Parts: sequence; C-alpha cells; structure tokens
Amino acid sequence: MGIDPGLAITGYALLDKRASENMATLLASGTIRTNAKSVKSSRLGAIFTELMSLIKHYKPDELAVETQFIAKNIKAAMSVSEVRAVSLIAANENEIPVWEISPREVKEAITGWGNAPKEQVQLMLAAQLNSTEIPSSLDASDAVAIGLTAYTLRRYEKIFNQGIDR
Amino acid sequence: MGIDPGLAITGYALLDKRASENMATLLASGTIRTNAKSVKSSRLGAIFTELMSLIKHYKPDELAVETQFIAKNIKAAMSVSEVRAVSLIAANENEIPVWEISPREVKEAITGWGNAPKEQVQLMLAAQLNSTEIPSSLDASDAVAIGLTAYTLRRYEKIFNQGIDR
Repeated sequence: MGIDPGLAITGYALLDKRASENMATLLASGTIRTNAKSVKSSRLGAIFTELMSLIKHYKPDELAVETQFIAKNIKAAMSVSEVRAVSLIAANENEIPVWEISPREVKEAITGWGNAPKEQVQLMLAAQLNSTEIPSSLDASDAVAIGLTAYTLRRYEKIFNQGIDR
Repeated sequence: MGIDPGLAITGYALLDKRASENMATLLASGTIRTNAKSVKSSRLGAIFTELMSLIKHYKPDELAVETQFIAKNIKAAMSVSEVRAVSLIAANENEIPVWEISPREVKEAITGWGNAPKEQVQLMLAAQLNSTEIPSSLDASDAVAIGLTAYTLRRYEKIFNQGIDR
C-alpha cells in the first residue's frame, strides 16, 4: 500500500504482485479528502479512520509512505508530517511494516533519475504497471508511485536492511 | 490533559479544577519514553497506546498539545509534528476537543510575558498550582504548563472561539 500524505488530500494505492511476472498490478487507488472547515483533529481522525478501513479491507503486507528530508515551507512540512504519523499509527495498529520513501527515491526507482520531472514519472509509471489505468488524480498516482517504489526496492532488496522504517 | 509531544520523551499532565477555588490542581503527570532502537512506527504506536490508555483512565474533558509555528530545526519540527498528530488522533478517537498551544502562549499565560525564560515559567508554575509537587522531569512539567495554559485560557475565555483546534 502506498500513501501520499496530505491534510486536504491523501492519496492511496494498493499494489499486488502478479503471479506470472516480476511486476506489480494496481488493485485500487483513490484519495481521502477532508473538509477544510473541520478542526484539525477531526481531519486527521477522518484520515485515520479511512486508512484503518482500507487496511482492514485489503490487508496489505507492507505500507510505504512518502517522507521529506528537506522542505522549503516548514508549515507545509509539519502538516504533511502529521498525516504521515497518522499513516504510521494505522500501520502499527495493524502490525504492518512501514517504508518511508523520499521523493528522490520515487524518481530514481520509477525513472532511474532522481531529478526526473513529474511528467516523466507519470509516463514511466504507466509503462511499469503495464496498465493504462493510472489514476487521473495526481495525489492517487503519487501514491501509486510511492507504493511501486517500495515494491521495486523490496524486489531488488537493494536497501533491504536500511529500507524499513528509516 | 496537557501534552508536550516528543518522539523520545512525551510529557503529559492531568489537571483538575478545584471545587472551592478558581485554580487547577495536578492529578497526575509523567513521561512516555520510547526506545530509540525501535522503528518509528512502533515508537509512535507506543505513544498512541499509552495516550489512549491515559485518556481512558482519566477521561479528560479537553486536551492541550504544544505546537510550534516557527522552527529552527526542520527535522525536529517534523518529528514533533508526528507526535502531535498522535495526540490529536488519540483525542479524536475519544471525542475530546483539542487546544493547540504555542510556546509563547504558555509563557504568556504562566508568567504574563511571552519571552520569559524557562526558569521563570517553572517558578510561576509552582505558584499557580499552589503545590510543591511540580514534576522534576522538564518534559512532564512542560506538559503541566501546557495544560495549565489551556485551563487559564478557558477560564478567562479570552480566545474561546478561536482557541479550539487552531
């Protein structure tokens, strides 16, 4: 399960291994939207409830959530951190290991280039999933990319020991 | 209930109104410590479990958690944000309204001066609680100060409408 955390919109994606190929297939993806007029604890609570329900339904083996180590806007970074924590709590409550994936790792894993533009990520994403069903919402497709990155890292086990819950 | 969020050490304090006076009394305070060797989702999960248990035991009417709008260290700010989110989720799961209190508001409420040094906050805290039982742990006494600030703001209802969940 990949998660692109955001207080207003959190993207999610459920990926599964294909039986015959060394590739992933997209089971589901979507967005969790919260009401900007609600108080923050309710908004975080709504995201928590929705993630718990998705985890209970799809029973993912692992969860990948986007993290950032550098941020230009500290207020935005703190807001994203809060939603990331909600994802981590939901994973922990369900005893699912978590990967924290940086935007750079996503770009590297999907395109082979850490500074790739967003458009290239989208194009390569479609190619790697062997599917035309990439979600139109950028938040949901970002979650697909995050999940796919964890899937790719796991497959190659390049950073296996350092990869979980850095 | 006041919470001073931190990944390594989270301080908490439970305050109650005195029947005869317009003052607060300290019911309990302490710290939640997490193992630095554990993965982050487990550490956040441990804080969540402990806060849920404290809330279930003491049934606080309101919860106050320290927030920060400016941070020198973005990594520390993001880490504190994650633990703050854990507090907000615990409050929301128990349908308790949340106050987000800034360090400046704590200093203003406790000492009357937004730039007061830490030592003065500690001294005034002891005086306002009319108690010598201020916890020796700085994390726990910060949580007392945060809880007392929310209590004071509520008592005067100075910022009542803006105060909840800013």
